[in-house]
Amino acid sequence: MKIALVIENSQAAKASIVHEALTEVAGPLGHQVFHYGMYSAEDAAPLTYVMNGLLTGILLNAGAADFVVTGCGTGMGSMLACNAMPGVFCGLVIDPTDAFLFGQINDGNAISMPYAKGFGWAAELNLRDVYGKLFAGERGLGYPKERAEIMRRNRGILKDLKAASCRDMLSVLKSVDPDLLKAAIAGERFGELFFANATDTAIADYLKSVLA
Amino acid sequence: MKIALVIENSQAAKASIVHEALTEVAGPLGHQVFHYGMYSAEDAAPLTYVMNGLLTGILLNAGAADFVVTGCGTGMGSMLACNAMPGVFCGLVIDPTDAFLFGQINDGNAISMPYAKGFGWAAELNLRDVYGKLFAGERGLGYPKERAEIMRRNRGILKDLKAASCRDMLSVLKSVDPDLLKAAIAGERFGELFFANATDTAIADYLKSVLA
Amino acid sequence: MKIALVIENSQAAKASIVHEALTEVAGPLGHQVFHYGMYSAEDAAPLTYVMNGLLTGILLNAGAADFVVTGCGTGMGSMLACNAMPGVFCGLVIDPTDAFLFGQINDGNAISMPYAKGFGWAAELNLRDVYGKLFAGERGLGYPKERAEIMRRNRGILKDLKAASCRDMLSVLKSVDPDLLKAAIAGERFGELFFANATDTAIADYLKSVLA
Amino acid sequence: MKIALVIENSQAAKASIVHEALTEVAGPLGHQVFHYGMYSAEDAAPLTYVMNGLLTGILLNAGAADFVVTGCGTGMGSMLACNAMPGVFCGLVIDPTDAFLFGQINDGNAISMPYAKGFGWAAELNLRDVYGKLFAGERGLGYPKERAEIMRRNRGILKDLKAASCRDMLSVLKSVDPDLLKAAIAGERFGELFFANATDTAIADYLKSVLA
Repeated sequence: MKIALVIENSQAAKASIVHEALTEVAGPLGHQVFHYGMYSAEDAAPLTYVMNGLLTGILLNAGAADFVVTGCGTGMGSMLACNAMPGVFCGLVIDPTDAFLFGQINDGNAISMPYAKGFGWAAELNLRDVYGKLFAGERGLGYPKERAEIMRRNRGILKDLKAASCRDMLSVLKSVDPDLLKAAIAGERFGELFFANATDTAIADYLKSVLA
Repeated sequence: MKIALVIENSQAAKASIVHEALTEVAGPLGHQVFHYGMYSAEDAAPLTYVMNGLLTGILLNAGAADFVVTGCGTGMGSMLACNAMPGVFCGLVIDPTDAFLFGQINDGNAISMPYAKGFGWAAELNLRDVYGKLFAGERGLGYPKERAEIMRRNRGILKDLKAASCRDMLSVLKSVDPDLLKAAIAGERFGELFFANATDTAIADYLKSVLA
Repeated sequence: MKIALVIENSQAAKASIVHEALTEVAGPLGHQVFHYGMYSAEDAAPLTYVMNGLLTGILLNAGAADFVVTGCGTGMGSMLACNAMPGVFCGLVIDPTDAFLFGQINDGNAISMPYAKGFGWAAELNLRDVYGKLFAGERGLGYPKERAEIMRRNRGILKDLKAASCRDMLSVLKSVDPDLLKAAIAGERFGELFFANATDTAIADYLKSVLA
Repeated sequence: MKIALVIENSQAAKASIVHEALTEVAGPLGHQVFHYGMYSAEDAAPLTYVMNGLLTGILLNAGAADFVVTGCGTGMGSMLACNAMPGVFCGLVIDPTDAFLFGQINDGNAISMPYAKGFGWAAELNLRDVYGKLFAGERGLGYPKERAEIMRRNRGILKDLKAASCRDMLSVLKSVDPDLLKAAIAGERFGELFFANATDTAIADYLKSVLA
């Protein structure tokens, strides 16, 4: 699975802690991690939690990532922004049991975590456990397993509801504030990582024109 | 403030615990609580977490409620469904500090809580503390207060992003699965509570036609 | 390692959930689990949290167990009672990170967990994760490992402090309320499990005389 | 009530955050707060978690404090050390519900909190809520109140068990490592605060001789 990491500005100083935990857990499980920034507190391309959401929408809808790991101080802002995007189902995950249940029941494609609230000493241990619960093994199997089918059905109904509610991503990109969009994809490695992985040509072409 | 309570089917047996805690806390703070069901595990009008989201979208966009309190087993499904709706900003709230920070920083209009995961003995104490943090005093003041202005600005940008992404609620209602919509508003007290409080005539008229 | 399980009366109905999680995790890790009761809510030998503590003191000081897993509604009462006993260092453990840090930093010989407060749906997942963090691999290695030596030294000083404060277990047994003692060892399998495993003959002999 | 605050060395940099939260909450509730240090990370009299426990034992047994608020990185070490002392019943408290239930059910005389694990941004909000739940109103009333009597009785039995297990505090002071004792009472304000408040002359006289 292609996992994209997106770090918000207020927590940019923790980027390497999060990135290290994620790569050390997800790598050996056979996943690839793509770090879209921010890379440090001094990063030239700051990402607000709103931009996190927009960037997450881009990565998932363009097929550049299968899953996005993001967050902010409480995790709430990034979660709200991600879930405002078409086709994004972003959980707010605090502990390993949240991660497991979100993976098995909701089977979404993004998580937002708090990197400030409750994030004290040894919080890297919790990060690792959360990633382990999310990225080891198959998701969407239901918990308990006997309820897999009804859970799967509800996920489909939710997907349909969201599809009825949201415009497609290309339309979203064309109608959002152009400055917000530019800022969301201004990361120094965005071009390199995104265009090599995106499978939706229409979105990729549009973003090329934005960056041009 | 008009607070609507929406309970999902798997947790319907706890409807009275939640309703009692909410009314006992929010009432004395000057708010009105409207209980849209489910009312018990035997309720004739079951609400899945997806319906919770659709109903929340209806209540908030129609002006029938200023705030919606909902949830499900982990809180995640209802949160995802709520946030799939235009104009809904639904936090996933676990503890009183979450509630306070969501109120002051994100100033959303709905919360989803877990009523099964982590919901053990004495969980009513936590419910009360959460409601107290949310509904006492003004929201949106920022935390810390020095950052109020930047937080307010980001909320506005998020609102604009979501507006670019979502269709208006009436369009959503017209394009969702009609059976899902009918089920979401099938609660025995929906008509009585909703039409007396809704301020958006177009939505109200459309739902009248659906119920007719 | 010999792990004893001790369940308090208010949570006796959950005895099999806890026992199953413990054996399924600790067994494959090479440990033996000894279930000292209570076995069900209808158990003829009820254990209050105070008795849990006394029984834990007996099992550890007599060498019948290397580690005791206990708890109560909030975990607090059993923790207090265990820590009132000589040579018992009982952590209050809520989540997997607690378990790991307690094992690596404090390296105690008992844990108490809440089986009512916060113990909702899917709580068995957390139990398993906690047991995994405690019983897989070596304990007392410090976290971070660079601080292992200072942590080891402080554990030794704590042990000395407790030794200065507490009487030896045999003296405790001779001075506690005889009815409390009898009740603490009244479990139907106590005799069978305890006398086969105890290594301290003085304590074993004294308890034989109590049971006689 | 006389509340003593005792801060461990690894968390000494947070002394003023904790002290401020405690005084701002407990003061208006009619309590007095006595800060026994550490006062900062550069404090000349460092307190390990073991010394926290010994100092807590001294303060409570000498009548210099009615309640002790302490902690360490995870809260576990200080809790273990406190509970090793005669007459000390120290809860490990993480959240407001813990605080309330500990106050109403266990009615102990000390709490230890984690000031590193889980102590992230805005943790001062949780401190305040915890202190509010502990220090507002009467403790020991039981929860639910219908079980007050059985809870009260179990507290008495626990007290008796601990009394059977522990030596009296003066004997403990005479048998602990004299260097540990000296370090535990080396805080710059210990003399001033302790001798003005202690009611047990034997302990006070002995500590005067130690300090002489």
